[in-house]
Amino acid sequence: MSRWEPGARGRLGSAALELFTEQGYERTTVAEIAARAGVTERTFFRYFADKREVLFAGGHELEELLVGLVAGAPDSAAPLDAIAGALEQAAAEVFDERQFFARQRQSVINSSPDLRERELLKLAALTAALAEALRGRGTAEPSASLAAESGVAVFKTAFARWVAEGETRSLGELITATFADLKALVAVA
Amino acid sequence: MSRWEPGARGRLGSAALELFTEQGYERTTVAEIAARAGVTERTFFRYFADKREVLFAGGHELEELLVGLVAGAPDSAAPLDAIAGALEQAAAEVFDERQFFARQRQSVINSSPDLRERELLKLAALTAALAEALRGRGTAEPSASLAAESGVAVFKTAFARWVAEGETRSLGELITATFADLKALVAVA
Repeated sequence: MSRWEPGARGRLGSAALELFTEQGYERTTVAEIAARAGVTERTFFRYFADKREVLFAGGHELEELLVGLVAGAPDSAAPLDAIAGALEQAAAEVFDERQFFARQRQSVINSSPDLRERELLKLAALTAALAEALRGRGTAEPSASLAAESGVAVFKTAFARWVAEGETRSLGELITATFADLKALVAVA
Repeated sequence: MSRWEPGARGRLGSAALELFTEQGYERTTVAEIAARAGVTERTFFRYFADKREVLFAGGHELEELLVGLVAGAPDSAAPLDAIAGALEQAAAEVFDERQFFARQRQSVINSSPDLRERELLKLAALTAALAEALRGRGTAEPSASLAAESGVAVFKTAFARWVAEGETRSLGELITATFADLKALVAVA
């Protein structure tokens, strides 16, 4: 048997979300997640440090993807356009096929102060990485930090709209719409 | 002797910051803070739940002040103007005489992941409270949340500038300047 079981990571993710939703995050153990996914606990720990990491494991890839997209934006792109373009492309590549998963995940996170804290930390790390990427393409401070903070504010707002019941637009469309909302808010201020 | 000792709260705050700065946050005990302030540990616990709360005790008053200022903004004020006006007034009332304290406090917070997490949680709670205050004066969603997020992004950026070594402008001036930076970023996007 190979050390990495094909599909195990995805099955563990689905099993964890099912169990967190059915019986609560706190009450779910790694042993239960592994059993539901049909793998051993040892296999679980090949992919995730603990049960919390099942919910946040994608954050690092997302950060790398966004940083790469910001770094690769045309020289002519304004800082907020570089951020908006990166978020829209990441939405199309990563999120838009996973709305059901994202809704379940958000509902689990909202159920636990510990998980909400972890999410805030991940978003703060993402903000710092985006500011660094903007500085790398020549944006000075404080504009780089402010553009990164504003971009993440747009992303958070668009994401909250996207996971709300009944929303039918894609995350990419909501990011575009929320950047337009920011422009409108600033235009009247 | 009265149950509330005059000045004890302020002395405890100064003593805690001194000790955190001298010997580190983790290594400082409540007993040491109380001794440095010339009060008993029991007196410490009349004012603060634990040593971490010495650093965050002002957050609730700040939130109440800002929410009151947003709610009391003129009906004609645009959402971001209501937020900007509240932040500028709070800066003048609360922060501008306390730059030395704020710098020391920030340096302690930056030294500890636990404290940074706590600060992110407080800022998230402040953002939610400001969005609620905007909804209370008629701003619809998602504009209310987006204006609150953007306003807190401006505040974080201005605050980081204000506590940086060598900065001589007041926090209020930096908030005004950072809102102008946001307008400039959005105008070219």
